[in-house]
Amino acid sequence: MIRFEQYTRIVDEYIAGMEYPAVPRALYDPIRYTMADGGKRLRPLFVLGACGLWRDDISAALPAAAAIEMFHNFTLIHDDIMDNAPTRRGRQSVFRRWGVNAATLSGDSLMIHSYRELARSAPGLLPAVVGYFNEAAVKVCEGQQLDMDFEGRERLTVAEHTVMIELKTAALFVGAVSMGAVVGGASGACLARLREFALEFGVAFQMQDDLLDSYGDERLGKAVGGDILEGKKTFLKMKALAAASPDDRAELTLIHKDLRYDNDDKIARVLELYDRYGVRAAVEEEITHRFSAAAAALDALSGSVPPDRIEEFKTFALGQLGRAK
Amino acid sequence: MIRFEQYTRIVDEYIAGMEYPAVPRALYDPIRYTMADGGKRLRPLFVLGACGLWRDDISAALPAAAAIEMFHNFTLIHDDIMDNAPTRRGRQSVFRRWGVNAATLSGDSLMIHSYRELARSAPGLLPAVVGYFNEAAVKVCEGQQLDMDFEGRERLTVAEHTVMIELKTAALFVGAVSMGAVVGGASGACLARLREFALEFGVAFQMQDDLLDSYGDERLGKAVGGDILEGKKTFLKMKALAAASPDDRAELTLIHKDLRYDNDDKIARVLELYDRYGVRAAVEEEITHRFSAAAAALDALSGSVPPDRIEEFKTFALGQLGRAK
Repeated sequence: MIRFEQYTRIVDEYIAGMEYPAVPRALYDPIRYTMADGGKRLRPLFVLGACGLWRDDISAALPAAAAIEMFHNFTLIHDDIMDNAPTRRGRQSVFRRWGVNAATLSGDSLMIHSYRELARSAPGLLPAVVGYFNEAAVKVCEGQQLDMDFEGRERLTVAEHTVMIELKTAALFVGAVSMGAVVGGASGACLARLREFALEFGVAFQMQDDLLDSYGDERLGKAVGGDILEGKKTFLKMKALAAASPDDRAELTLIHKDLRYDNDDKIARVLELYDRYGVRAAVEEEITHRFSAAAAALDALSGSVPPDRIEEFKTFALGQLGRAK
Repeated sequence: MIRFEQYTRIVDEYIAGMEYPAVPRALYDPIRYTMADGGKRLRPLFVLGACGLWRDDISAALPAAAAIEMFHNFTLIHDDIMDNAPTRRGRQSVFRRWGVNAATLSGDSLMIHSYRELARSAPGLLPAVVGYFNEAAVKVCEGQQLDMDFEGRERLTVAEHTVMIELKTAALFVGAVSMGAVVGGASGACLARLREFALEFGVAFQMQDDLLDSYGDERLGKAVGGDILEGKKTFLKMKALAAASPDDRAELTLIHKDLRYDNDDKIARVLELYDRYGVRAAVEEEITHRFSAAAAALDALSGSVPPDRIEEFKTFALGQLGRAK
């Protein structure tokens, strides 16, 4: 059995070894900048991890793994334009550094190169792999559109918000395990379980991300409270709004624009309201709940997959939710 | 033998019958708007035409044909953002009608849907078809980047400009015939001839487009002289700059920004300079020359392809260059 630490090394090496054309520099420099940045390479690790449930040699899954990371990075470049985000992972966003046009076009090009990488998959696997990749890609765009639509909506339910996150965030994890499973040779039934796992994980992962933004984590190179100051609709905010009194609801909705408060005051006040409605605990609890569902879906693979491989994947996923096993 | 009029009907019907999800509307309305617009569907016709050189049943080439048209339309949506172009084919551009964010995202989504459509190709053909599609897609982005780079360059040769057009415009025609030929079952040697044909045609097509913009054509819904007023680097302008005296060169370079002239004066003055340097005739001549080369590449298929099919393709291509046979 290969461990996730090895997958990480394999993915990092593979991606570091990828070459883009030298020119036009204005097109490929932003791509190199984005891909060199790293991040956790979570989606490719899910591809390899899924493949590794069935096979020791996961090299056939590397093109799909790299491709989904490239696609993910393309979405970040374009999302930062749309969200007018100055930074990403503690560095200037591409559009801030190179301008909107360069960011638009290099994002387009990175997406195309992701398909080009994907096409290195074995010919016999290509139809299935491309199918899952496309499915995920379509959903990510739909999720980003819903995200933008929802920012302007006055009333929004937690359920609607969850659907948006399933599309925008979880779909790529679902695509990742689907591609890995297909390359690994999984049965249809096992594939379905893995997809359940990835969907639950993906939503829980976003919840954890929302928690970290408001309650802190050094790893992300992100200012704590950034979501609060942007007035972003997170799971925390959605749950708070659902429970809040009319006055508190109005305050939660408008405080990020309130000129009377400075940033620290705004963050403190919102966290106070979150405390009042027990939001942090509620989100923590839902992460636990979703992780249990995710783990159960993985456990259902036993019979087809050796238990130590299931445990390894589970431990890795749990670690990504900030929980040691 | 199927004639191009029939291909046109088949492509139009196929594209008109394509369905996009109902929601999110803000994502799919711009896609429907763009794809309903029509245009000449030239690239899909090249896919079917190339396939039809070898086969009477061209239905296996329809996904590739639709996909390349979708990809082309995606590039128009994003190019209009980058070029700040208010209109496209006589209607508002997507970004003007729906805003930059919606245009960015719906363009992304249209590109993904083009890959999804492409993936409907027969599984055995998919690796080759995706390979040619990716090759063309990468080049189109490189060409667009060079186009933006070159706008800011003071000195630019006709040869450099031609390379840019080969990437930005001709590559998609090369991709179209490559996919059609592969689906049709062409040999490697025939494929190479068809690619030569498409490359020459693609550059000639852009030259013809440049001529129409400065010397008029009602079909395009485009103001005559638009390129001149934008100061766009066209084949006409590049050839004029290459031949011009220092004074005329300076005037050609700056006149579109000159506040002393109104639009009609600017156009008249630039056309006067074009006349001085025989630019129109030079471009006409190069179109003729390139078309001869394109036709010769098609003729080289005789032996593998019945002569009436070669003639049919040639006549169609010639018609697109504004020349009856």
